Amino acid sequence: MDFSIPSDIQDMLANVGQFLREEVYPLEERFVSGAFADLVPTLEEKRARVKEMKLWAPQVPAEYGGVGLGFMQHAMLSEELGRTPMGHYVFNCQAPDAGNMEILAEFGTQAQKEQFLLPLAAGKSRSCFAMTEPECAGSNPVWMKTTAVRDGDEYVINGHKWFSSAADGAAFAVAMVVTNPDAEPHQRASQIIVPTDVPGYRWIRNIPVMGHAGDGWPSHSELRFENVRVPVSNLLGEEGAGFAIAQARLGPGRIHHCMRWIGICERSFDLMCERAATRELAPGDPLGNRQTVQNWIAESRAEINAARLMVLHAAWKIDNEGTKAAREEISAIKFYVAGVLMAVVDRAIQVHGALGVSDDTILQYFYRQERGARIYDGPDEVHKTVLAKRALRSFGMKK
Amino acid sequence: MDFSIPSDIQDMLANVGQFLREEVYPLEERFVSGAFADLVPTLEEKRARVKEMKLWAPQVPAEYGGVGLGFMQHAMLSEELGRTPMGHYVFNCQAPDAGNMEILAEFGTQAQKEQFLLPLAAGKSRSCFAMTEPECAGSNPVWMKTTAVRDGDEYVINGHKWFSSAADGAAFAVAMVVTNPDAEPHQRASQIIVPTDVPGYRWIRNIPVMGHAGDGWPSHSELRFENVRVPVSNLLGEEGAGFAIAQARLGPGRIHHCMRWIGICERSFDLMCERAATRELAPGDPLGNRQTVQNWIAESRAEINAARLMVLHAAWKIDNEGTKAAREEISAIKFYVAGVLMAVVDRAIQVHGALGVSDDTILQYFYRQERGARIYDGPDEVHKTVLAKRALRSFGMKK
Amino acid sequence: MDFSIPSDIQDMLANVGQFLREEVYPLEERFVSGAFADLVPTLEEKRARVKEMKLWAPQVPAEYGGVGLGFMQHAMLSEELGRTPMGHYVFNCQAPDAGNMEILAEFGTQAQKEQFLLPLAAGKSRSCFAMTEPECAGSNPVWMKTTAVRDGDEYVINGHKWFSSAADGAAFAVAMVVTNPDAEPHQRASQIIVPTDVPGYRWIRNIPVMGHAGDGWPSHSELRFENVRVPVSNLLGEEGAGFAIAQARLGPGRIHHCMRWIGICERSFDLMCERAATRELAPGDPLGNRQTVQNWIAESRAEINAARLMVLHAAWKIDNEGTKAAREEISAIKFYVAGVLMAVVDRAIQVHGALGVSDDTILQYFYRQERGARIYDGPDEVHKTVLAKRALRSFGMKK
Amino acid sequence: MDFSIPSDIQDMLANVGQFLREEVYPLEERFVSGAFADLVPTLEEKRARVKEMKLWAPQVPAEYGGVGLGFMQHAMLSEELGRTPMGHYVFNCQAPDAGNMEILAEFGTQAQKEQFLLPLAAGKSRSCFAMTEPECAGSNPVWMKTTAVRDGDEYVINGHKWFSSAADGAAFAVAMVVTNPDAEPHQRASQIIVPTDVPGYRWIRNIPVMGHAGDGWPSHSELRFENVRVPVSNLLGEEGAGFAIAQARLGPGRIHHCMRWIGICERSFDLMCERAATRELAPGDPLGNRQTVQNWIAESRAEINAARLMVLHAAWKIDNEGTKAAREEISAIKFYVAGVLMAVVDRAIQVHGALGVSDDTILQYFYRQERGARIYDGPDEVHKTVLAKRALRSFGMKK
Repeated sequence: MDFSIPSDIQDMLANVGQFLREEVYPLEERFVSGAFADLVPTLEEKRARVKEMKLWAPQVPAEYGGVGLGFMQHAMLSEELGRTPMGHYVFNCQAPDAGNMEILAEFGTQAQKEQFLLPLAAGKSRSCFAMTEPECAGSNPVWMKTTAVRDGDEYVINGHKWFSSAADGAAFAVAMVVTNPDAEPHQRASQIIVPTDVPGYRWIRNIPVMGHAGDGWPSHSELRFENVRVPVSNLLGEEGAGFAIAQARLGPGRIHHCMRWIGICERSFDLMCERAATRELAPGDPLGNRQTVQNWIAESRAEINAARLMVLHAAWKIDNEGTKAAREEISAIKFYVAGVLMAVVDRAIQVHGALGVSDDTILQYFYRQERGARIYDGPDEVHKTVLAKRALRSFGMKK
Repeated sequence: MDFSIPSDIQDMLANVGQFLREEVYPLEERFVSGAFADLVPTLEEKRARVKEMKLWAPQVPAEYGGVGLGFMQHAMLSEELGRTPMGHYVFNCQAPDAGNMEILAEFGTQAQKEQFLLPLAAGKSRSCFAMTEPECAGSNPVWMKTTAVRDGDEYVINGHKWFSSAADGAAFAVAMVVTNPDAEPHQRASQIIVPTDVPGYRWIRNIPVMGHAGDGWPSHSELRFENVRVPVSNLLGEEGAGFAIAQARLGPGRIHHCMRWIGICERSFDLMCERAATRELAPGDPLGNRQTVQNWIAESRAEINAARLMVLHAAWKIDNEGTKAAREEISAIKFYVAGVLMAVVDRAIQVHGALGVSDDTILQYFYRQERGARIYDGPDEVHKTVLAKRALRSFGMKK
Repeated sequence: MDFSIPSDIQDMLANVGQFLREEVYPLEERFVSGAFADLVPTLEEKRARVKEMKLWAPQVPAEYGGVGLGFMQHAMLSEELGRTPMGHYVFNCQAPDAGNMEILAEFGTQAQKEQFLLPLAAGKSRSCFAMTEPECAGSNPVWMKTTAVRDGDEYVINGHKWFSSAADGAAFAVAMVVTNPDAEPHQRASQIIVPTDVPGYRWIRNIPVMGHAGDGWPSHSELRFENVRVPVSNLLGEEGAGFAIAQARLGPGRIHHCMRWIGICERSFDLMCERAATRELAPGDPLGNRQTVQNWIAESRAEINAARLMVLHAAWKIDNEGTKAAREEISAIKFYVAGVLMAVVDRAIQVHGALGVSDDTILQYFYRQERGARIYDGPDEVHKTVLAKRALRSFGMKK
Repeated sequence: MDFSIPSDIQDMLANVGQFLREEVYPLEERFVSGAFADLVPTLEEKRARVKEMKLWAPQVPAEYGGVGLGFMQHAMLSEELGRTPMGHYVFNCQAPDAGNMEILAEFGTQAQKEQFLLPLAAGKSRSCFAMTEPECAGSNPVWMKTTAVRDGDEYVINGHKWFSSAADGAAFAVAMVVTNPDAEPHQRASQIIVPTDVPGYRWIRNIPVMGHAGDGWPSHSELRFENVRVPVSNLLGEEGAGFAIAQARLGPGRIHHCMRWIGICERSFDLMCERAATRELAPGDPLGNRQTVQNWIAESRAEINAARLMVLHAAWKIDNEGTKAAREEISAIKFYVAGVLMAVVDRAIQVHGALGVSDDTILQYFYRQERGARIYDGPDEVHKTVLAKRALRSFGMKK
């Protein structure tokens, strides 16, 4: 075992950290309180800086215009970027575009890559992933009602989706739709690319989340597909492979989410310590002298360390043995790290007192907008059951 | 011991519950997403209905135009009203006006009552309480920098306050200010009534809280007092009695907050159960079949029951033995009930999945806006220490 | 609502408390480390003192030689007695005899009362309750394999039981046995009185529990019934009523257990505070100055208060509306109070440091021997499900 | 980063695991319920087997008769050995002898090594470490009252110690004693080797712990030193270096404890899963189908994985950067892993129901005897404060 991190990676992380602190953190107040659209021009400047730094699209293979970082390296970078809500966006590795780039690169045809992947990789367009439906529990991934029926050279799509993140302004959606209703449950769905300018594609609204109306990239939309017609060439991968592609996307995707959450934890930890070290309860008596605050700091430190090691280990296992072999580890980090995230942010808020609930720090944004971490990409409860059932099978339990 | 509730109180609570469900719950969407100012006319109509129901200002003595409910009765009503963020407002027993009415009735001069109390009780004006300062830790109640210096028949007030709830639109502030800087710490401050239209009173901003900009009653302001002059007759009670009056206000005030929180818990519990009973994970298989959800329901039920009994017991003790005798109980409910509140709302959100973080239910508002419950009126940590030190003294510990 | 306790009850509790501290606490070291048999003569002396105090068999109706305390009064007494492991025994209201006396008084024939109840009430014999079976999950109360087959005027009983508490030295067992295997699940079992001197009744062993071998009353036995024959007149109540009688026994029995646990909590709380107030971390610096210790004290105080109020409320509801109406409350206290018990004892141990794990205090006994509280009389998990399903039904969930 | 484990280490661990399951697990019932002395002959046979396996004293340098495993390798072995309470003893790397061997090897003179280290390494004698005193809080390591006064070529030692593990039958004690009372607090104490057959050394008793009387190696003794005289050549290291040597011992020692606890966690996890997979709640319906049980399994798996990674990372850091550099990590694992240990064992017991509290499984032994993990070698609270203060200093807090 070797826990060392190569010095060039350490240098890259330090550079990125400095860049974010100097250039991106100062934009957070506008990000939290204003419209995203108003911030886009400024963010484009920052994106230009990232290109100069040769760190643009770090996870994208060089052939499509990215840096082509290794999986572990990008995981480490993802933590650093996660310290601010705009980090991944500025580097063009934000969800859901990053995931879409990944599956387009892996499963897309040459034509699909040219039409959809290259503009994404270049930061010239955005995209969304339309999977969850209001009528069907998202925690049951094989239950959905949106259908695509083949009609000649076209698919005709009908259905209702929501929580399609970043759909507002997206050039296309990758939609999970039932193409083979009579197949075995995990083989009923396909992924089809739907440009958002086709007739019948209806963007209903941005769903306000935790008091945040949402617009542009940081938004979650409700969509309807009403007799939407797309050419069959827009099918991604095989018909019936929708679930398999989603799994291929979600496994590594959870690593990135988890590392991003760890970035949020570290940012919150820093804010907590800084506040405790400097805020006085009485002249000369800083808050950090209180043992309760010390407990929170210590517990947070331990839990964040634990979380990072688990995620890096899971990433290492994916890298060395494949996503399938790492399935227990992936489920474990999904719920464990989300729990740490909630706990650390909550403690940091409490240390800040009234300031902590105000929008004068970024903590309240994390508290609100990251509450979903325990829900999306499989709620805690589903991942626990997945993990436990695998363990129980190895002890002889049948069903 | 007798846990029964008189049938007339039960009837009143049932009537109020029905009124809220029918008339006030439907306004919540506007309350959460729009400006409060736009809602005021509609709320005035509801207030008129409450007057017709003879339940206006339920806690206010009849001589000032209220119902004059007993302390325990009002506590029970407070739970019912707490089920919706506008409940107390519609009945004119909302913080901070209710507390201000209480101390004006108890400590105010006849002139003060006429000028300040009666309009409040009639719902013709609003008020705020200016205590917390950004530069001094709110958890140390005897440390503040705002001063009032006597100059002839006037006090000259200078200082900086924040989290003065409902200051936006208030007719006057009750300000905690240091009048006797050389006295023993608990006797340095006084409470002085400051009309908001006097020169030097500066309303700086509504502090956005958890993504909520705030306006009118539901807001938290930053204020500055710059050589504000008020007549000495605006002093509330004795000079140096500011802390004592604050305690007189906060003791019973914590009962009302706690009962309000229990109302929020019950509302969240209902939403959780309703969702669990009806949301299907697969056709015919409701979420309520999941043991984890059952655990959350059972634990919430037990904790809410515990919370209510503790608060009613503390209220009974205040009623029978006085606030001082009930100090341990008051500290205990402050942190215990706030903890239950956070836990129950969080579970209800998790049961709702993506819907739970959306603004399509009221749960997210509770999650965000009630996070302060663990902070205001003394953070958890302070109340725990207060309680523990009293216990330890009874076992012989000296300091 | 009225939380006051009549002064005569307060006096009785104070007297009992003093008696226990002076006469029974000093026996704890022998109780923990020696054989129970050696302690019996001394305990008989204490029992004689209790008779002099006119508090013998406090819960037993006067016609059978007890005090005939009301249900609420006995609940309060049970807390006081619970402060020491021998409390209930010395007053002759210990499990499982108290429960057996209760069902004999309620369901027993005149002959059964004379033969079995009177000696128990007089403290001349002991008894046990044989329900749990090693082969069937105790958490499924309608699944058992022990059978009683009628053969003329006799039942012939065969089966295997364990965790029959206090069977070692018992004069008779009340055995749950299947008499009607083809009936509806809740009507298959009956309760039959089995004198322990009948042929075929085999006492196998005392099951060591948490390092405690057990003997006499404080023990948990494994038993076998091998063609045991008892007259049909030993049937308690109706054939098939075994489950109903068990419920009648367990409902109020849970009140007594819970109040006993609260007594343990209060004892542990006192030990914790005493230690914190006097143990120095450095000269002049008691442990009670540490905020973590203060947190534990405050949280324990709040939780114990909550627990007591919930149990007394459940008792009051049983008294006023019957056991069935209080079923949710009974389930709630069963798991809630057991959880508080574990938490409080654990904190008290931690405050004692190394002393806390040593047998030099009673805390370690509570830690070990009361761990079962979360398991017996229905594990936490079962009670949570029971409570939740009732709640969900009221929101329309069907199964 | 590389999480792989060399195949030869994997093979060693697999061999050891098999040996323990086949040869040592079967002795556990005798270990838990009988006298250790009766078991010693059998354990000697097992020790002989270990020598044949060439794994005797795995952590001891080859020059003293051990295997000389690297630090990380021994950490991994320690987990495997920790699965049974006798594991380390059978391999001769049990506390406190392992720690004593370590400091003798590092700080001992040639004569000390010959007289004290070699017999220990050969398994021909046992030893103890006498540090904690009943009169001084063990959590304050620089406060002790036992003194050693130099008198010519001898030290004269007086004092009172307790929780000197394994003192019963030890050939010598390493005693922490104050030699320089006027020095700076961390330089007052020295470590002196005291043969147990010298006049004035009084073994008082084995302190019963959690119902376990203790004898021989698994025991915790109370000792008195009454004018004990030992030659100055028995001083270990420098005068005044007692605290520094203790730190040198405790840092790596905590790694071993933590890995041992992880072994206990894994054993408990296996028992939990096995029970859940096979115990039926009703015919054909295993306990493992219950979501609550699944949650416990999943949470345990995640927490154990986290714990192991943290400990191995801390060990790696000690190995690469030294104990001092790893001080935060060492404090973090001390409280984090102890917490996981308690949680996992507790869940495993609950899954076993009544069987779980009985001595029929090893779980109750872990529950009782490992409760001390949160106390010895620095209680949780001390380690949290240590960690937090270091973090706060890096954010500018001074004291």
